[in-house]
Amino acid sequence: MSGFELDQRLARDSDLIVSLGLCQLRIMNDSRWPWLMLVPERPGMSEIFDLEPLDQSQLSVEVNMVGAALKAVTQAEKINIGALGNIVRQLHIHLIARSAGDQNWPGPVWGFGRSEPYDDHQRQLFVRKILEALSS
Amino acid sequence: MSGFELDQRLARDSDLIVSLGLCQLRIMNDSRWPWLMLVPERPGMSEIFDLEPLDQSQLSVEVNMVGAALKAVTQAEKINIGALGNIVRQLHIHLIARSAGDQNWPGPVWGFGRSEPYDDHQRQLFVRKILEALSS
Repeated sequence: MSGFELDQRLARDSDLIVSLGLCQLRIMNDSRWPWLMLVPERPGMSEIFDLEPLDQSQLSVEVNMVGAALKAVTQAEKINIGALGNIVRQLHIHLIARSAGDQNWPGPVWGFGRSEPYDDHQRQLFVRKILEALSS
Repeated sequence: MSGFELDQRLARDSDLIVSLGLCQLRIMNDSRWPWLMLVPERPGMSEIFDLEPLDQSQLSVEVNMVGAALKAVTQAEKINIGALGNIVRQLHIHLIARSAGDQNWPGPVWGFGRSEPYDDHQRQLFVRKILEALSS
């Protein structure tokens, strides 16, 4: 794995769904919104433009693939995609399905309120739908 | 321009710096943070994964190029990159230079407080530096 280690806060707040070519696809353990995260398995990365050019291209492919799957599964009005990293510096990209009337709509999800963990069944159902959408 | 028209709210809140291969590079008229925006000149786009595959690749190139320039110019701790679109649905990508102690750090900029317009000199200086960084 060339020295990549997942940041402990990202590990605590999310669970691995599957490893793609470049990134770990993870689900945030917060049921308030359908919320996925991509973490490139490259050590020492903080900005997307720090990645090697081929990895930048691959990241674009994976972000678009996962974004489309998230939209297909949720039928959300808008997919919010963001790479912030002001708190956790390890490069990670959020993908969140948003719809009118959800918590803090139309504002951003980051820093809003407290997370509400999934129950296992609810999470498994969402993960299965995402995997089906990715493979279709 | 194949029917592309800039959303009126994006036009009101930002000014054109330069047209890149795919996107308009614009500066947000808010001096609280160094804040740029990329708007793909394609009609009817709302999600990045709605773009044609070649445009997705080009968007990745332009986001990374502008992100690196913004970091070089500002020496910011972190570049925040986000495609939200909950309010303005026309596809646009924000790039914001963030540093500890700036307004709402480490929270997101979207929806926070009121914009503080640039004076002309300050804006011109920032734009010139960005253009220099892009061409170097």
